[in-house]
Amino acid sequence: MSVPAVSRPAPTSAPTSAPTSAEVFAAHRGGKLATGLTAPLDDARDLAIAYTPGVAEVSRAIAADPALAAEYTWANRLVAVVSDGTAVLGLGDIGPRASLPVMEGKSALFKAFGGLDSIPLVLDTTDVDEIVETLVRLRPSFGAVNLEDVAAPRCFELERRLVEALDCPVMHDDQHGTAIVLLAALRGACTVQGRALDGLRVVISGAGAAGVACARILLAAGVTDVTVLDSRGVLVPGRAGVTGEKAALAEVTNPRRVTGGTAEALAGADVFVGLSSATVPEELLSLMAPEAVVFALSNPDPEVHPDVAARYAAIVATGRSDFPNQINNVLAFPGVFRGALDAGARRITEGMKLAAADAIAAVARDDLAPDRIVPSPFDPRVAPAVSRAVADASVNGR
Amino acid sequence: MSVPAVSRPAPTSAPTSAPTSAEVFAAHRGGKLATGLTAPLDDARDLAIAYTPGVAEVSRAIAADPALAAEYTWANRLVAVVSDGTAVLGLGDIGPRASLPVMEGKSALFKAFGGLDSIPLVLDTTDVDEIVETLVRLRPSFGAVNLEDVAAPRCFELERRLVEALDCPVMHDDQHGTAIVLLAALRGACTVQGRALDGLRVVISGAGAAGVACARILLAAGVTDVTVLDSRGVLVPGRAGVTGEKAALAEVTNPRRVTGGTAEALAGADVFVGLSSATVPEELLSLMAPEAVVFALSNPDPEVHPDVAARYAAIVATGRSDFPNQINNVLAFPGVFRGALDAGARRITEGMKLAAADAIAAVARDDLAPDRIVPSPFDPRVAPAVSRAVADASVNGR
Repeated sequence: MSVPAVSRPAPTSAPTSAPTSAEVFAAHRGGKLATGLTAPLDDARDLAIAYTPGVAEVSRAIAADPALAAEYTWANRLVAVVSDGTAVLGLGDIGPRASLPVMEGKSALFKAFGGLDSIPLVLDTTDVDEIVETLVRLRPSFGAVNLEDVAAPRCFELERRLVEALDCPVMHDDQHGTAIVLLAALRGACTVQGRALDGLRVVISGAGAAGVACARILLAAGVTDVTVLDSRGVLVPGRAGVTGEKAALAEVTNPRRVTGGTAEALAGADVFVGLSSATVPEELLSLMAPEAVVFALSNPDPEVHPDVAARYAAIVATGRSDFPNQINNVLAFPGVFRGALDAGARRITEGMKLAAADAIAAVARDDLAPDRIVPSPFDPRVAPAVSRAVADASVNGR
Repeated sequence: MSVPAVSRPAPTSAPTSAPTSAEVFAAHRGGKLATGLTAPLDDARDLAIAYTPGVAEVSRAIAADPALAAEYTWANRLVAVVSDGTAVLGLGDIGPRASLPVMEGKSALFKAFGGLDSIPLVLDTTDVDEIVETLVRLRPSFGAVNLEDVAAPRCFELERRLVEALDCPVMHDDQHGTAIVLLAALRGACTVQGRALDGLRVVISGAGAAGVACARILLAAGVTDVTVLDSRGVLVPGRAGVTGEKAALAEVTNPRRVTGGTAEALAGADVFVGLSSATVPEELLSLMAPEAVVFALSNPDPEVHPDVAARYAAIVATGRSDFPNQINNVLAFPGVFRGALDAGARRITEGMKLAAADAIAAVARDDLAPDRIVPSPFDPRVAPAVSRAVADASVNGR
């Protein structure tokens, strides 16, 4: 009995055939996670080491110096994948129980790609105060929190409150994981096209968790012309429905104060980023500038089919594994958390996120092409590169 | 990458040498638990099964029929080992962080002996309302709760409240695990001596978590003359300090209404059960009836050294692995939880606990002797026998 090895996935091509329902359900029977022991427990001597009386020495040492918990327990490097099940994949508010297979999958990815132990904690409450309170009480049990599939706009307040309340890395992956990989992909596209990030006109469709975070990371990376759309049109200060997080975003985006809908936003745009399930008619894509970039990231159904997008765009990406240029969070979160924990970081800062995006882009650079602007999720160089970059950024106070 | 195998421990003798501090700390470095995957995650096809898009089918199915969570997630068979760190081993109130190595050890034992996945959840609160509330919110994340190392008398209220609030097995192991194994050992001793349980005069020293539960299980098993001592003497209704749980216990124990201290209680007693750290002077043991049974269970220092006890008692047991007759909770809890979960039980009833004790005693029966009244903790027959007995008891409504 020993600790399960971390897999070292090799780069692979897209799946040859879609999994059947029967395969999917069979693979989920009994769940996708298991706990294991890091040392054998086969005889009385093992028991005397791992349990009484031996364990008492370790507990006594931690009681005398709480910092030793980081060294002699699993908690310090354990990622809690936390959800209330209110915005699960494209399925919406299906509740904590139904969200659990997704959270188990996420914990499995932390192990397989980041070498980090991880447990899902799904919560039967959607109250921000209660979720914060619950995780504060559980704080000694884990080392980091990956917030997952919490509906906007509640997710913004929840993440902010958790970052304040917990002295450990906290990240809402639907926001920042997506944003990091989007920025990496856009860097890749710019390098392919030989143009600079800061001169781009970018349109983001969707002002939910991912849309807001993507807009913010692009601004932080130096893109000056970002326009964001929600279901009612372009975000402009003072527009009906532009409140809270959207109002704050409207202040710092849309510098040309465009008003209207997708057509007005897309006229002359260089980049379209789809982060809502709203489809984009192809005639609107024809309004974009030459050499356009289209990221249609809605899953499983992109805002526009990549073959259609390719008629109007020079570079096309989706969230799907069966098309080129898959923009997938798994490129970011395992390395981000691994790096933050390796560095003993208390926060995942904007600088660490930017460093993660740069690291992903740097891995892609070796083999860049219009249909290879990001590395494969199974490229084994990605997580170590991201982790190193994030740890360095943390240590250097970025 | 696969699920770690369940060890099949073979019976062994006591350890040949005590582990050194260096060995103990080395074995604890990075913690004793790890998470693993139950299926490979090596290529895009695996990812499409375990994560998006495949997982969405499973989540959708559970959203439509929540009962399917039991089948397609790990939660239903996951034991949360929950503690606030207020009564850890003999170390007392050392807090949740310092308790964590013990809880990891416990989770490791669940895996090694019961084949059950288990995670420690240590709580930075000692408030009963808050602990109950926290576990209610986390309810979809686990399948059972093993309460551990919570101080008396709070542990009684906490367990009662959790049993009411959660629709899953909950057991405070310091109470009931100890009680089950004690009853099994006493059955073994009685069989060796050819006498009946119900005729015994039993004295229990200690009215904490273990003392109260041991008294109650002996009463439930038909022992009529049980006397319990706390630090101020024999429990009698109306005595100073006899309130709450102790008052309830005083009503149903001590039928001869003995008053006084250990001497008065031990005069003519058949069985002494030590569950406090108070030492017992050997002259008091000399007051016991012939063929006395002494269980000195305080750890790591028994109330009386077993060699001294053997001068006055026909059968002696301790909690230690380096003397014969080790009364160790690991004989009970893995099988109890396994059986309860196998049977889909919502409660761990008194009948299930009695069945567990009988099952342990039945395994010992094959090889019974004054120094073999209980099986070895590494006897591989124990957990399956306990699990079967508990599941049967549950199914039969006992």
